[in-house]
Amino acid sequence: MFNEQEKKALYDVIYKRRDVRTFLSKSIPSDVLQRVLEAGHHAPSVGFMQPWNFILVKDGNLKKKLAWAAEKERKALSIHYEGEKANQFLELKVEGIKEAPVTICVTCDPTRGGSHVLGRNSIPETDILSTACAIQNMWLASCVEGLALGWVSFYKKNDVRDILSIPPHVDPVALLSIGYTEDYPSSPILEEAKWEKRRELEGLIFEDTWGNKK
Amino acid sequence: MFNEQEKKALYDVIYKRRDVRTFLSKSIPSDVLQRVLEAGHHAPSVGFMQPWNFILVKDGNLKKKLAWAAEKERKALSIHYEGEKANQFLELKVEGIKEAPVTICVTCDPTRGGSHVLGRNSIPETDILSTACAIQNMWLASCVEGLALGWVSFYKKNDVRDILSIPPHVDPVALLSIGYTEDYPSSPILEEAKWEKRRELEGLIFEDTWGNKK
Repeated sequence: MFNEQEKKALYDVIYKRRDVRTFLSKSIPSDVLQRVLEAGHHAPSVGFMQPWNFILVKDGNLKKKLAWAAEKERKALSIHYEGEKANQFLELKVEGIKEAPVTICVTCDPTRGGSHVLGRNSIPETDILSTACAIQNMWLASCVEGLALGWVSFYKKNDVRDILSIPPHVDPVALLSIGYTEDYPSSPILEEAKWEKRRELEGLIFEDTWGNKK
Repeated sequence: MFNEQEKKALYDVIYKRRDVRTFLSKSIPSDVLQRVLEAGHHAPSVGFMQPWNFILVKDGNLKKKLAWAAEKERKALSIHYEGEKANQFLELKVEGIKEAPVTICVTCDPTRGGSHVLGRNSIPETDILSTACAIQNMWLASCVEGLALGWVSFYKKNDVRDILSIPPHVDPVALLSIGYTEDYPSSPILEEAKWEKRRELEGLIFEDTWGNKK
């Protein structure tokens, strides 16, 4: 059982965790990084398949290549926005791969655990959902350790596979840049940039069936 | 910044959280359930799209129907196991929908936030990954509140859509049964049942490129 202080600590971390894209070059002590990885590894996984791997990218040349892949995709996507939204988009900083001391490529191996993983037989994407749970654990752990984390999702998967020599069947689910930062945001950066607002939770809850409000 | 006690609290919750399938019928106070839902709603989401809804299923008849959908799928999947594994499978309890006072269907609406959600344009499944982050937050919140949670992934999505009147474009990502339990497991139930073991984290970490061990 957990006490009130422990409850408060968990909720504080959950509420204060932010997506960060500005990092100092200061390196991360290896025991701290290890705790973040252990937190990820203790996520739930469908059929206990633990489909994740963690590629710790610290090499400057590889980081440059990953940043190139992200920048290429950012330019391609900017074509889809027009007018005011296009200007807003071009001003957003979408990643900090070159600055961050480490970027972790979190992968999902759909063959882990054999051909008939319990539960994954019904819903195959439960393997990447498990991987996302690991990422959320790593994010909360980073936050409590005073580390900033940014989830980069601007890339073509095959570019990342090519750069990090990832086999074709393995899914590079996320690039997580981790490091220290000078200003940890107090609210979501997309809210601060007036890109999107937080919705009212009340409007997202239904009772018993879709659309039913008590 | 967080202190040592707060760090310890987060890691304790992360390490002690388990998937539970045995519940007492005792109901959950509404403020506690509300905190669990708020924790989910404070998950990160791609482009801040917040694609989730939470359908709180408490009606006995609907719970029976969801349990039927899960049982049907369990029977169908049992066909895929043979010999010892088949016996092991049939002994596993895969859900506790009828006993738990509430089962939350967490859904993902891929149309939330319009046609060009920031980041989701590159990797469309980032919407369900965001939803999984919300589920992990809810799982940790449940654990710290002394509540047991079980993620049911044995169902055909269209059965759940039919039972809960979910529109065809909305993805019923998970059924989460939540309630109190008499014996919260100290280790993963699939480990206790000798179905799978926890892997060594060390073997899952690579340096710079896939397969590279320092």
